[in-house]
Amino acid sequence: MANPTAAALIIGDEILTGRTREGNGYYLAGELAKAGFDLREIRVVGDDHATIVAAVRALSAAHDQLFTSGGIGPTHDDITADAVAEAFGAPIDVREDARALLAAFYASRGVELSSARLRMARIPDGATLIENPVSVAPGFSIGNCHVLAGVPNIFQAMVASVLAGLVGGAPLVTQSLRVMRPEAALAEPFAALAAMWPELSLGSYPFVQDGAFGTNLVVRGTDPAGVAAAMDALRTAFPEGQ
Amino acid sequence: MANPTAAALIIGDEILTGRTREGNGYYLAGELAKAGFDLREIRVVGDDHATIVAAVRALSAAHDQLFTSGGIGPTHDDITADAVAEAFGAPIDVREDARALLAAFYASRGVELSSARLRMARIPDGATLIENPVSVAPGFSIGNCHVLAGVPNIFQAMVASVLAGLVGGAPLVTQSLRVMRPEAALAEPFAALAAMWPELSLGSYPFVQDGAFGTNLVVRGTDPAGVAAAMDALRTAFPEGQ
Repeated sequence: MANPTAAALIIGDEILTGRTREGNGYYLAGELAKAGFDLREIRVVGDDHATIVAAVRALSAAHDQLFTSGGIGPTHDDITADAVAEAFGAPIDVREDARALLAAFYASRGVELSSARLRMARIPDGATLIENPVSVAPGFSIGNCHVLAGVPNIFQAMVASVLAGLVGGAPLVTQSLRVMRPEAALAEPFAALAAMWPELSLGSYPFVQDGAFGTNLVVRGTDPAGVAAAMDALRTAFPEGQ
Repeated sequence: MANPTAAALIIGDEILTGRTREGNGYYLAGELAKAGFDLREIRVVGDDHATIVAAVRALSAAHDQLFTSGGIGPTHDDITADAVAEAFGAPIDVREDARALLAAFYASRGVELSSARLRMARIPDGATLIENPVSVAPGFSIGNCHVLAGVPNIFQAMVASVLAGLVGGAPLVTQSLRVMRPEAALAEPFAALAAMWPELSLGSYPFVQDGAFGTNLVVRGTDPAGVAAAMDALRTAFPEGQ
């Protein structure tokens, strides 16, 4: 059976202007592969309400699960929660359970629960909170959409929380063979092998090392026996590979 | 006048499966900011023909320029050129100018121009070749879509070639102020400043250093005088900033 599908929506002007090298999509891709979800798209958009609403609608409709990153902090450019609420047609306001979490956290530090901080308690009706073990302000899940913080260590903790509650499929198994020949020299036998295992994904990735051309041949699939058989065939076809 | 818009389409299963941390989108974002293009979206999709065709059509229609990365090598999973040709309704086959480039390159190295290598000479009718100074196999531009190699150093060289031929707008100017206070403590005055400069983008990015919360306040815009005025106001509002 095919694994459930997923998409990621990464939100923030800092990425599109080249200030920040995004890493949450990469992290999520690895975790989803292990958990047996088939990540089909990563989309990066800016801090624009209409753009976020449209992307959430399109990606949540086309995939089994959608993960968003960023834009749930206390400042004026944190507009993700309101955009996701609109995408799902849900009312949104400061919600008592989220307000109570923030109130307890700030009271323990002797810090005022200002209106800016209260903004982080804006949660759509019907959403489930996602724990933030670092700075308490929660993420949330609504429908098939999981709204996570953009700060990497908080994002990673929230991914773990969400995945613990989802039923994935078979983990993706990846193996590779490193061959010190140019990609084009391997292309024909490699394509023939790929045609023998249509249920696997066989990819080739060229590199240059000390001026010599080499290629990593990668086999991916959710059936470990199939991946092993394809790797055996690859090693037979390219005995010099490592 | 608003800057021309752009989008990026990054193609490859190796990114969506978590094998490769993508960097071409980040590089392109920085170059487009300098060249005066407003990058609105980065989309990552897998090696699937219909998905690539649909993404090229959507992104090229919605933006002034579209840059693609990956999938133009010699192997069976390199399907970008054919998908872009279909998206633009252009016939595609081995084209004589591209074939001649490859033939000269391989002849000089005493290497056969195999059918796998010839695959890299598949160029849509009407497209303009983009020089590859590393391994000769060209990229191409068709309509507003620029099809570049995914190997990072070749991608970067091709970005430079394409941008040299495009008319951009005003370069994006970015300045920032580092304040050792939590983001929420700055949110209200920062929002008030953002409202004073609606033509600029003011963003705040929290961080933790030695257990203390800090925030980078970032001002972006294409009008250097406006950015400078907003930075002056930020320094007045947050005199401890650096």
